Order: sequence, then C-alpha cells, then structure tokens
Amino acid sequence: MPFVNIRITKEGATKEQKEKLIQGVTDLLVDVLGKNPKTTFVIIDEVETDNWGVGGESITELRKKQ
Amino acid sequence: MPFVNIRITKEGATKEQKEKLIQGVTDLLVDVLGKNPKTTFVIIDEVETDNWGVGGESITELRKKQ
Amino acid sequence: MPFVNIRITKEGATKEQKEKLIQGVTDLLVDVLGKNPKTTFVIIDEVETDNWGVGGESITELRKKQ
Amino acid sequence: MPFVNIRITKEGATKEQKEKLIQGVTDLLVDVLGKNPKTTFVIIDEVETDNWGVGGESITELRKKQ
Amino acid sequence: MPFVNIRITKEGATKEQKEKLIQGVTDLLVDVLGKNPKTTFVIIDEVETDNWGVGGESITELRKKQ
Amino acid sequence: MPFVNIRITKEGATKEQKEKLIQGVTDLLVDVLGKNPKTTFVIIDEVETDNWGVGGESITELRKKQ
Repeated sequence: MPFVNIRITKEGATKEQKEKLIQGVTDLLVDVLGKNPKTTFVIIDEVETDNWGVGGESITELRKKQ
Repeated sequence: MPFVNIRITKEGATKEQKEKLIQGVTDLLVDVLGKNPKTTFVIIDEVETDNWGVGGESITELRKKQ
Repeated sequence: MPFVNIRITKEGATKEQKEKLIQGVTDLLVDVLGKNPKTTFVIIDEVETDNWGVGGESITELRKKQ
Repeated sequence: MPFVNIRITKEGATKEQKEKLIQGVTDLLVDVLGKNPKTTFVIIDEVETDNWGVGGESITELRKKQ
Repeated sequence: MPFVNIRITKEGATKEQKEKLIQGVTDLLVDVLGKNPKTTFVIIDEVETDNWGVGGESITELRKKQ
Repeated sequence: MPFVNIRITKEGATKEQKEKLIQGVTDLLVDVLGKNPKTTFVIIDEVETDNWGVGGESITELRKKQ
C-alpha cells in the first residue's frame, strides 16, 4: 500500500505527463516490490517557482540567470 | 503537540466540512492520547483530481469510468 | 481516497491507542465527507522529542522545565 | 543534501520575504551542519486559513475572535 | 529539481530494491519531464505496520486476517 | 503558526546541533514574517543514507565514490 508524493515546479506539466508519472511510479512499485497497484497512491504537488529554493535562491531567480 | 495533515481531492469540501474535520481530529487526539488541543495543528491539503493517482490512473480518469 | 499523516512525539503511544487513532480518523472522513474507508490511508509518525521543537526549543528541553 | 518544507498561512508573504526564508534556512544548514548549499532544497507551502486548524478551529475563525 | 517521497511499509525491502526505486523514479522524471537527475531527490520512508492504517485498521491487523 | 519539516541524512547530528536548527529556524520565521515563536513547530527527520537518493543513486553509494 505505498504512498508516493512527487513534488515538481509548476511550469506547465500537462495532464498527459502527469498520467505518465502516475502510471510509471505505480508500475515501478509493482515491479520492484510486488506491491498491489490498486492500493498505490500517487500525489503530485506543483510548487510555484517563487516558493522553491535551491542553493539559497528561489528557482524564479535561478531561471533569470540561466 | 500533534501535527495532522489531511489530504483529500479538491472536489468541493465546504468550509463547514473542513471545520468539522479540524474539530474532529483535534478531539480524537485529546481523547485517545490526552494531547493539548491548543498545540494541535491540522492542515488540510486539497489536491486536484489530475494530480492524484490510484491504481496507475488519475482520479480524473477513474471518475469518468464510474 | 484520503491520506492522513498524524505526527506525534515518540512517548509511548500503545498499539491500542494507534488502532484508535486509525479507526477514529477513518470514521471521521466517512462521516464528514462520505469517503470510502477502504481507500483511506492513515500513517502515524512517532518523532523523538529531541527532533521536535516548539517555541525555539526541543520538546526534550521543554519537558525538563515542566 | 537537506530538504526543508516550510508551511505558513497564505496571508500575503511577499516574494522578498520568501527569498529571505530560502536564504536564511539554507545559511542555517550550512552553518550548523556544514551542508552543501547547492543541494539544499527549500519548499514553502502557503495554506489557506480555512484549511489550517489550531485548537480545534480554523485560523479563519480564530482571526475573527482576535 | 523534483523531490519524491516514497512511503512503504517496513517489511524487509532490501538495499538493492531501494536502489532500484531510487533509480527508477529518477529515470521516470528525466523521461517524462526532462528533469535534471542530479537535482532529483528521492526519500524512502519505511513505516511500521502498526503505524499504517487502511480501512480503519492497522496493516498489522489486516495481515493477520489474510 | 508555521510548521517546518527539516529532513537530513542520519549521519550523526548531535542534540546540540538539532537545538540550533530548531532555534535558528524559529528565529528566522519571527524575523522575516513576524510569526509567534510559541506556535512555531519544527520537526527534524533523520533519514538513513540507503533511503535517500540523488542523481539516481543512494547517498550510501555516492559516499563510497567520494
């Protein structure tokens, strides 16, 4: 009965991409650990780039420098 | 000083229902563990159905089949 | 398909108390939101008092002053 | 490679304040534990006051009484 | 810079299985969203069966009935 | 009423270091956002290096190569 929480920046992931993440993680848990897919939960959180920091700066600021 | 995080799909829970969840969980922790309600935190996260998967599919897709 | 994470300090909650928390939270989600209990997950995390802080001090230190 | 999740109520924190939180937490982990800032992640979640409870009531209700 | 948290019951997952989960989830995020693997974090939490509930009962109790 | 969750690898952080993290994060939230320290919670999770992955490998494996 695994529970998976995927956190990504909110930068336009499509519904199709999110379906692929849900399917792919669920398959992985079935393949590696033999878990039951019916009781495998996946939650995707999309986080604003102002609210995610790496190296002491928000991703909003990091993107400006790239 | 318990901390409770309740995650539900974003499908129209009302303010009144959310108040009941907050009250009910807090009462439960007082009753079962004798915790101080003043330092009991409850956070409710409402998750889009596209972003929650069960059995390898998003709840958006599962709802269509029901 | 709710997911609930309860975090309490690791101070001797018994298996019976944890069963009551699991049962109580599940019942609450059924009563308030009409959720299906079979797909309601509850995870209890027990946290060492050295690792939980309130008001700038660990609960280990706060307990000594009480 | 620390990961920090800061949860605050959604009550108008500015981009500048969020940058300060990201910078401050990252510096703290470098100073106290010698962690590498480049692999220090900080995520700030801003939670609606209806969805955050303390003492059995939502912060929305608590604010009205203050 | 995705962050993934996988929660499974503590029932003997081996180091090799955990390496496969870490590798598999990272590859998935690269394939589906083009994320940089170097800044993809995966944390696996192994939860005691007494502390995980489904359908109002702990997994410890559910396992006894199977 | 902020809630902060700090996740670090379990590699010998001392009680004193954890007190400094708790104090430092609480001070930061008071300074930047004017939050009340008495209702500021900090939880530190220490994660085994086998259970934390970066770049598709566990930190256990990464440490061997350094």
